[in-house]
Amino acid sequence: MLAVHLENGAVSVRTVPVPHRPEGSALLRLLVAGICNTDLELQRGYYGFTGTPGHEFVAEVVEADTPALVGRRVVGEINLACTQCDWCRKGLGRHCPNRTVLGIVNQPGAFEEFFTLPERNLHVLPDGLPPEHAVFTEPLAAACEILDQAAIPQGETVAVLGDGKLGLLIALMLHAHGYTVHQFGRHTEKLRISAAAGVSTELARNAMPTAAYDWTVDATGNPEGLRTAAAMTRPRGTVILKSTVHGEVAVDTAPIIVNELTLIGSRCGRFEASLPLLEHGLIPVEALIADRFPLGEAPRAFERAAEKGVLKVLLTVP
Amino acid sequence: MLAVHLENGAVSVRTVPVPHRPEGSALLRLLVAGICNTDLELQRGYYGFTGTPGHEFVAEVVEADTPALVGRRVVGEINLACTQCDWCRKGLGRHCPNRTVLGIVNQPGAFEEFFTLPERNLHVLPDGLPPEHAVFTEPLAAACEILDQAAIPQGETVAVLGDGKLGLLIALMLHAHGYTVHQFGRHTEKLRISAAAGVSTELARNAMPTAAYDWTVDATGNPEGLRTAAAMTRPRGTVILKSTVHGEVAVDTAPIIVNELTLIGSRCGRFEASLPLLEHGLIPVEALIADRFPLGEAPRAFERAAEKGVLKVLLTVP
Repeated sequence: MLAVHLENGAVSVRTVPVPHRPEGSALLRLLVAGICNTDLELQRGYYGFTGTPGHEFVAEVVEADTPALVGRRVVGEINLACTQCDWCRKGLGRHCPNRTVLGIVNQPGAFEEFFTLPERNLHVLPDGLPPEHAVFTEPLAAACEILDQAAIPQGETVAVLGDGKLGLLIALMLHAHGYTVHQFGRHTEKLRISAAAGVSTELARNAMPTAAYDWTVDATGNPEGLRTAAAMTRPRGTVILKSTVHGEVAVDTAPIIVNELTLIGSRCGRFEASLPLLEHGLIPVEALIADRFPLGEAPRAFERAAEKGVLKVLLTVP
Repeated sequence: MLAVHLENGAVSVRTVPVPHRPEGSALLRLLVAGICNTDLELQRGYYGFTGTPGHEFVAEVVEADTPALVGRRVVGEINLACTQCDWCRKGLGRHCPNRTVLGIVNQPGAFEEFFTLPERNLHVLPDGLPPEHAVFTEPLAAACEILDQAAIPQGETVAVLGDGKLGLLIALMLHAHGYTVHQFGRHTEKLRISAAAGVSTELARNAMPTAAYDWTVDATGNPEGLRTAAAMTRPRGTVILKSTVHGEVAVDTAPIIVNELTLIGSRCGRFEASLPLLEHGLIPVEALIADRFPLGEAPRAFERAAEKGVLKVLLTVP
């Protein structure tokens, strides 16, 4: 079978044996996968990763302990948790200290024709949800995580900084939940996607509104984002941090303390929160797809995904 | 009358006229004042302050619109809010954008024999509360602000980093509220104060506990504090920022996002929360008093307060 291989910054496609299915796991056949910024960071050497990346996927179950799963199309939670620790018992396996992570930490990823994942990680897709929509379940769950962590009252206005893939999904998700969203970005053509859905969008400029929002999300992916978001937030307001920035960021904590801001770090989320939004067509994810490549052309797909301004690049297995 | 004057880093004592009492304000005669780190920062030139500093005080009302106030001993909220804006209407005049601040922002402070403050800012002291205890009302309110912002469940363990004045007040306040407090500091003799009250104390060392607390307070006053506090906090835990550090701090936001930490900036608080603790003798503030000087010896008092390891220095008017 074909498998994408990452090593020392190079993306290659290899022919390897179909993996053995451990007890409790399902053997999955890839249908569609999405290239995430994290995959590009793995390529750039963060986390010292070597192997098969990939954690955004839709697959068909080929073999499983549970017969009813076989033949079903699934998406899957990417954290393989121990199920025994305090975090797992609280339903927060995403923070299990013993976890491995599909295609990121000590677990071969989904950019290969066949791979395995514990059955408990799988979510069967609702009928009629196209795989190219369902492949957004994982990144949209990361957007939805905001509402799991912060009880933003209905009717509130939320500022979203950033118009990359995550920024768009966050703006669209908050809009779908009935919030008034003001999205600030640097790309007219990307902002057009959320504007078409009803989000109020604005080109980020040098003079951004100050102390204007009770809720601000930083999804810029750059070190300036936190500072800008904090300055845009009213005293006692909340800044949600969705930007993973590598290395240290210079932060002036004085305005955070003087204005008594709350900062919430936010990472990946529950599929139960994102799947229904996709099932009911509430997020126009189609507009976020920039390109599609067959799995065997993964090196070209990675190049394309790394181009400036390119949104979601998909890998497909016909 | 005598008034302390700060200008270009120099502390002097001048003789000036007794101030005019505006309508709605009380004319106050100083009994005891406390030198706060903020006063030392004003001296060092932060905030471009020139004038009479001082915001921790106990005074006697000499003249007021409300006859019942005259002759009473009072403490006073330091933010002079506009009373009209949204913040003031929400009872959060401490964030009023039009506020002046006693002895800090556009308002002569309490380090003088007579000064004025709006009557609405005043809290009459309970009988029997000694002025040298009551002078801690303002800094203790800043400690109490933590519980106004974060609903820490009863029975929780809270780590407090720092054993300066604020760190001690925070540890003692949380202990008085029934929390289990683990305080980490660098000064055996200071930690002894909170240990005597029942706080579990430990000398901060190079290898601090990691991911060990759901609630951590940074009151170290140094730029390392945030990083240490974040590392000591469990995933989904909360770090309360009480350290005002000037300038920018290098922060690695990745662990904050990966571990989904909440950071809460926290500043000054409500006197209604701190006065009862002092009234009922629940905070051994006497142990925090390092020295006392008459108001006329303010220059020496500032020198003493700036010495390494010195806790609260009081200015008194006999």
